[in-house]
Amino acid sequence: MHAALQEARQAGAEGEIPIGAVVVCDGRIIGRGHNLTERLSDVTAHAEMQAITAACATLGGKYLTGCTLYVTVEPCLMCAGAIAWAQVSRIVIGAADPKRGYSTYVKGSPFHPKALLATGILEPECRSLMQSFFKSRR
Amino acid sequence: MHAALQEARQAGAEGEIPIGAVVVCDGRIIGRGHNLTERLSDVTAHAEMQAITAACATLGGKYLTGCTLYVTVEPCLMCAGAIAWAQVSRIVIGAADPKRGYSTYVKGSPFHPKALLATGILEPECRSLMQSFFKSRR
Repeated sequence: MHAALQEARQAGAEGEIPIGAVVVCDGRIIGRGHNLTERLSDVTAHAEMQAITAACATLGGKYLTGCTLYVTVEPCLMCAGAIAWAQVSRIVIGAADPKRGYSTYVKGSPFHPKALLATGILEPECRSLMQSFFKSRR
Repeated sequence: MHAALQEARQAGAEGEIPIGAVVVCDGRIIGRGHNLTERLSDVTAHAEMQAITAACATLGGKYLTGCTLYVTVEPCLMCAGAIAWAQVSRIVIGAADPKRGYSTYVKGSPFHPKALLATGILEPECRSLMQSFFKSRR
């Protein structure tokens, strides 16, 4: 999650909403990403999408079975769907997002039936990054 | 929807699940796409994602307000989320997808609060393309 936070800080430094994600396989980071919606003018360029696409490119396959995704903020509906399609085995979330997070909209778990989920990991750091960003924008 | 069906047939011809999508603005197609998950080895490369990204590139902006998305099969959770983020104003769906479609998983509408939704448009054509594809694979 420290690496995901690093990505999130990088996003913030670039004027993007500070969310970061990394995909880990066998203890090694195989994909990382941060929010790039402004730079790419693409609302789908979320941290998780970048990290998943990067990880799949590293592995040369479509699925991330056995991999863990760390993300600083609860994924939105789109990213939750992508995580499910990629069959990520473990999802580790920092701060909740009651407004845009998937859990506000989805009935049950959208992830692979065998996927493990952990939330609230380094939550204060993840949350405060977001709060400072939006405060500075007001 | 005929243009979306054309995209879907193209996907099928390339060995991809035959789903197509187009984005229309002021009566003009500004983005089109079909499923490319196999070719790109990327589970996020759905027809809608391609069409949305293409349309945003055409307009040079992040939002598709005032645009209509035509898609041959009900979007999945990921694509529904992307459609919401892009603020597509009208969503026109061909065939339902009770297994992977967003409506099986989502409470209420995931789309922009003012978005209009039409389903079942050219449904027999959209559905039969999918059925023939999966039948030929068995």
